[in-house]
Amino acid sequence: MGGKIPVGVLGATGMVGQRYIAYLAQHPWFEVSYVAASPRSAGKRYREAVENRWLIGADIPSGVADLPVHDANVFREAAGQCAFVFSALEMGKDEIRALEEAYAAEGIPVISNASANRWTEDVPMLIPEINPHHTDIIPIQQKRRGWDKGFIAVKPNCSLQSYMIPVHALRQAGYPVRQMIVTTMQAVSGAGYPGVPSFDMIDNVVPFISGEEEKTEQECLKIFGTVSGNKIENAALPLVSSHCNRVPVIDGHTACVSLSFDLPDGKKPSLEEIARVWTAFRGFPQEAGLPSAPAQPVIVRTEPNRPQPRRDRDADKGMAVTVGRLRPCNVFDIRFVALSHNTKRGAALGGILNAELLKAKGFFDGL
Amino acid sequence: MGGKIPVGVLGATGMVGQRYIAYLAQHPWFEVSYVAASPRSAGKRYREAVENRWLIGADIPSGVADLPVHDANVFREAAGQCAFVFSALEMGKDEIRALEEAYAAEGIPVISNASANRWTEDVPMLIPEINPHHTDIIPIQQKRRGWDKGFIAVKPNCSLQSYMIPVHALRQAGYPVRQMIVTTMQAVSGAGYPGVPSFDMIDNVVPFISGEEEKTEQECLKIFGTVSGNKIENAALPLVSSHCNRVPVIDGHTACVSLSFDLPDGKKPSLEEIARVWTAFRGFPQEAGLPSAPAQPVIVRTEPNRPQPRRDRDADKGMAVTVGRLRPCNVFDIRFVALSHNTKRGAALGGILNAELLKAKGFFDGL
Amino acid sequence: MGGKIPVGVLGATGMVGQRYIAYLAQHPWFEVSYVAASPRSAGKRYREAVENRWLIGADIPSGVADLPVHDANVFREAAGQCAFVFSALEMGKDEIRALEEAYAAEGIPVISNASANRWTEDVPMLIPEINPHHTDIIPIQQKRRGWDKGFIAVKPNCSLQSYMIPVHALRQAGYPVRQMIVTTMQAVSGAGYPGVPSFDMIDNVVPFISGEEEKTEQECLKIFGTVSGNKIENAALPLVSSHCNRVPVIDGHTACVSLSFDLPDGKKPSLEEIARVWTAFRGFPQEAGLPSAPAQPVIVRTEPNRPQPRRDRDADKGMAVTVGRLRPCNVFDIRFVALSHNTKRGAALGGILNAELLKAKGFFDGL
Amino acid sequence: MGGKIPVGVLGATGMVGQRYIAYLAQHPWFEVSYVAASPRSAGKRYREAVENRWLIGADIPSGVADLPVHDANVFREAAGQCAFVFSALEMGKDEIRALEEAYAAEGIPVISNASANRWTEDVPMLIPEINPHHTDIIPIQQKRRGWDKGFIAVKPNCSLQSYMIPVHALRQAGYPVRQMIVTTMQAVSGAGYPGVPSFDMIDNVVPFISGEEEKTEQECLKIFGTVSGNKIENAALPLVSSHCNRVPVIDGHTACVSLSFDLPDGKKPSLEEIARVWTAFRGFPQEAGLPSAPAQPVIVRTEPNRPQPRRDRDADKGMAVTVGRLRPCNVFDIRFVALSHNTKRGAALGGILNAELLKAKGFFDGL
Repeated sequence: MGGKIPVGVLGATGMVGQRYIAYLAQHPWFEVSYVAASPRSAGKRYREAVENRWLIGADIPSGVADLPVHDANVFREAAGQCAFVFSALEMGKDEIRALEEAYAAEGIPVISNASANRWTEDVPMLIPEINPHHTDIIPIQQKRRGWDKGFIAVKPNCSLQSYMIPVHALRQAGYPVRQMIVTTMQAVSGAGYPGVPSFDMIDNVVPFISGEEEKTEQECLKIFGTVSGNKIENAALPLVSSHCNRVPVIDGHTACVSLSFDLPDGKKPSLEEIARVWTAFRGFPQEAGLPSAPAQPVIVRTEPNRPQPRRDRDADKGMAVTVGRLRPCNVFDIRFVALSHNTKRGAALGGILNAELLKAKGFFDGL
Repeated sequence: MGGKIPVGVLGATGMVGQRYIAYLAQHPWFEVSYVAASPRSAGKRYREAVENRWLIGADIPSGVADLPVHDANVFREAAGQCAFVFSALEMGKDEIRALEEAYAAEGIPVISNASANRWTEDVPMLIPEINPHHTDIIPIQQKRRGWDKGFIAVKPNCSLQSYMIPVHALRQAGYPVRQMIVTTMQAVSGAGYPGVPSFDMIDNVVPFISGEEEKTEQECLKIFGTVSGNKIENAALPLVSSHCNRVPVIDGHTACVSLSFDLPDGKKPSLEEIARVWTAFRGFPQEAGLPSAPAQPVIVRTEPNRPQPRRDRDADKGMAVTVGRLRPCNVFDIRFVALSHNTKRGAALGGILNAELLKAKGFFDGL
Repeated sequence: MGGKIPVGVLGATGMVGQRYIAYLAQHPWFEVSYVAASPRSAGKRYREAVENRWLIGADIPSGVADLPVHDANVFREAAGQCAFVFSALEMGKDEIRALEEAYAAEGIPVISNASANRWTEDVPMLIPEINPHHTDIIPIQQKRRGWDKGFIAVKPNCSLQSYMIPVHALRQAGYPVRQMIVTTMQAVSGAGYPGVPSFDMIDNVVPFISGEEEKTEQECLKIFGTVSGNKIENAALPLVSSHCNRVPVIDGHTACVSLSFDLPDGKKPSLEEIARVWTAFRGFPQEAGLPSAPAQPVIVRTEPNRPQPRRDRDADKGMAVTVGRLRPCNVFDIRFVALSHNTKRGAALGGILNAELLKAKGFFDGL
Repeated sequence: MGGKIPVGVLGATGMVGQRYIAYLAQHPWFEVSYVAASPRSAGKRYREAVENRWLIGADIPSGVADLPVHDANVFREAAGQCAFVFSALEMGKDEIRALEEAYAAEGIPVISNASANRWTEDVPMLIPEINPHHTDIIPIQQKRRGWDKGFIAVKPNCSLQSYMIPVHALRQAGYPVRQMIVTTMQAVSGAGYPGVPSFDMIDNVVPFISGEEEKTEQECLKIFGTVSGNKIENAALPLVSSHCNRVPVIDGHTACVSLSFDLPDGKKPSLEEIARVWTAFRGFPQEAGLPSAPAQPVIVRTEPNRPQPRRDRDADKGMAVTVGRLRPCNVFDIRFVALSHNTKRGAALGGILNAELLKAKGFFDGL
């Protein structure tokens, strides 16, 4: 593994932390050298800390199984042991925000999966295919905070990943979106572990996920926003209204989307044009050949009954979004169904892609 | 059982037919005296015809178990054996339409669950709480067709039952609806038996039900229509766009609804007013005390995570609609979640309520 | 409610406690007058204490919704407010044992669902169809402990309820059982709430339930035991080996049973004789007409694919056991599949039947 | 693909046939050159023949998508187009037997997944780790039948694959098994497509799979049998009694096994010895380095709650068996839980491993 960049995982014993460790096992650029979790796990070997709590089919990667688990609160220990950390912390929001800032202040960049810093105005919320230029805020962030090498970058909520790249591809092709009504059917792995009780999920649907609709509606505006002065300014559109549901699916969030364009009728794209735009779309990760990037970010299926979570979630390593059922909407302009893998694209692999973006942009040079 | 009205069930061995038979077992007005199915079941006792195919937990009602099964195609046999028939036929649409007409021509009223005659212009599509006055078309139907006592009345698709009564209650209170975007999460029992393969429903969602979105979008316009001359004329609104999904739930269709009112802003009802309208709503079945009518057709729940299919589908014998999560919509005026039991309100019990409506209106007098 | 016996429920806010309250709502003999739970619920109205945690479809019974919740640890408060208590306490085993004894010492009989006192040698573990005579230990228990009116009686684990009555019926008919190998497929409601994570139950089976196999194997020996001196002495047979699995089912435990008789070959019953014995079996609850007793405790089904949890669990109010697939065993004498409702027969309704048994035997006279 | 052996797939459009095609896409020795199905698919391109019926997440392999589909009944067409065929035919048993014989008579070896020829006395039923020497019957089969190059070899039912290799490893280590009582919890993919209705699998277990228990009990005796004269003679032991259940799991059959050894008490192995035997076991496929062979055929897990289908079915490409919960049995000697992937090890990949065994033994030389 000579030459790989040593990385840390905060919250390494939780469900998302475990996935970071599993997905990084074969990574060509990064290798896990540091794991940290709650004080109750600190001092154990990683293998012991997750005993009977390892949730992934594949075994614990051998390179990590014997690493000592550090106390995530003792951020100074990480210095010198890893070039940056992935944050999969599970604590109160204020604690996470403070702790991520402490790591950054210590000179350790933080690539976070948590929601705590998503609305910090100088922290970029990245989907590398959409807003790779939002990394421009990082030097500003460092300067304002007086941080030398550390910084914080976050990824958005998993619930909007299925339709954001398709909407971005349309915007970029000259077809901005005005209004969207979205209903999601979200997998239980999105709630962590133990997460949703099986008593609530067998022969049932729960039409509510606390805080999720607000995230879905607001985060898209920051992602489509612009770096302006010392902060990222939200876009004005699209206006989103969402219904978020939990359904008995292990992995894969499905979204039913109806949308209207912000265009006069004569300028609106045909269904064929939309499918063409989606199929042809490529972003920075594809151009830069980032290792976790899907070859084709948006896969358009034409079968009448796709996408389906179990069949489509793993498309291109679980990093491609699958779109289907593209058809006119009786009320808005078009409707379609979009699907993405919530724990791959939507969580740990998405975080890894962010790290790859940052490396490609030189943010880890000299660490 | 002295004095009960003898009724027939066509398609008696299928899933919906079995439910008619189960639900009628304790009915105060009707008793099953005649069962008919495909030629391959004809000649058997009902008990034998459904051997190893009886899908309901409770046993076959003893009064029906030993009835001989007739060939549903031989409509003449029914005459004199029942006052009217419930049609749960499972055949091609054209065959069903022809056969239902043949029964009616023979003097046997047909209360149908099938979709074949839903768009026949002089056939009422009834939800007794909404359009009981559409029975006014029946004498016209009889006259046009030259039918003496027979007629056809149908019920709409199960997918729209959860939100139609709430929307009707609003219309009736002076709050007409202009646009609706609806996403349904529908139970597998709606597909009959064998229906949806389990290979498609474990750890999965199927975002497509053939023909269902069209039914959802169009049937509401006939239900809200008016009897005019020789036919029922569609209403112009609401304009509906729907996404229909199959989810791993046994019974109970859930709908996420966003809607806009056809009113100037100052006239739009508050959320409190809407909840009040729904809770207070009563229709013909409640006023007439029909035996299968729910006491309160719309139940408004205020818990953050209701309605849920397994907990709410059986509200008031499975005949009440449960509404929850009433809140403002970012794009339209309001959004909410609605739920109804697809095989009770949405199929067999709904058909029985239609028969009760018709009896209360005198259509079976003298049969 | 004039004349009903006032009863208390300890652990009233948990899943089993809620079921006691729901099932007692219509009880002809008992009415809930007292509810107690953890200190954190104490002082609230019951309605508030279970807000957003009421797990049952039907609403909170109106007679209980406004009762004040007492601290279950303050056992003295119960005196004078109820004739006896149902214990659905969820605490450490030692705490439950001590607390149940404190209530009994205070003069309040305790009918317990908990496992804490199952192996207390002078406490009867009752299935009213099998060992109603074990109530003979109660006066001995009271005398030894110096208790006046209070006493403790318990019910066994839910996992063995499906096959214990069938095995008892065989024993009583002269066909004692020597060996049993049992594999259970148990519903998630048996684990309480939140219980089993949905992440473990979608597209999965968990072949382990902590402590369950031991309970299954040992409790049957006490139930088949005899009151002897100051205690209940275990039976020597049957020798049971069990495999307990959790499966994605809401309610209803299914058991696959292979068993050998403790009889010479010529004396072993035929399959027809066994089915006859099971169908004809009646016990004390049937003879005494206890209100929660099923009319026929063991229902034998002859369809090739029954019993199934969703179709058979609710047989006779969820209190009958359903047996099917009776056939010869290649290794032992016979094999069959047995099913019972784990939260009705196996928990709260089973506890209520125990109370009915005790009332019928006069144990609540003069309370 | 120069140098790969061209192979055919009969029944190529069914669920097992599709899996053969998917799993062979990357095979180092074989490439699909010929696909055949029912007359109704014949004449289409494979891509068209499975349109909207392709059940696997990954897309149709490009090398197969445009192959013409032949009529499987016209066995002469296959000659010259493939060296041998995998039979995944779905027809009546007699038809399959006749058709497989016709292919063999035509000079085309048939590696079959079907049950039709499992009990043909000169046809080997192979699990390559257990009875690779049963291929010795093939020259005898060819001679008796007058077949030149063609022959038939089959694989056993998927339900017994999870415990046969563990039992074989014990036999081979000197610990023969006398009696086994087995309860299986089987995945729905084992029933093909459409297979089990979702109405039977949501919130349910079906304790019956037609014919499965008999297969489980009898096939093991042929697999452990010996080639003797013109046929394979069954072993006398173990005596197996099984309960086969269908559970809501997509892939992976789980078996709860209790067994007794055919040894005096003092000779019986300890649990440690058994775990050691299993972990150390290697068979012909491992020694010969067959491409689809798992590195370690039996994986022993020590966590209390493993194996679980979703977590363990894919161990070592879905070809390793996972065993856990090894513990003493109260009635027999030991009990444990075993799991294997029913559509990989238990069906298509198992068939491919059989073909690899036959190639390694020289049976395809000169074809």
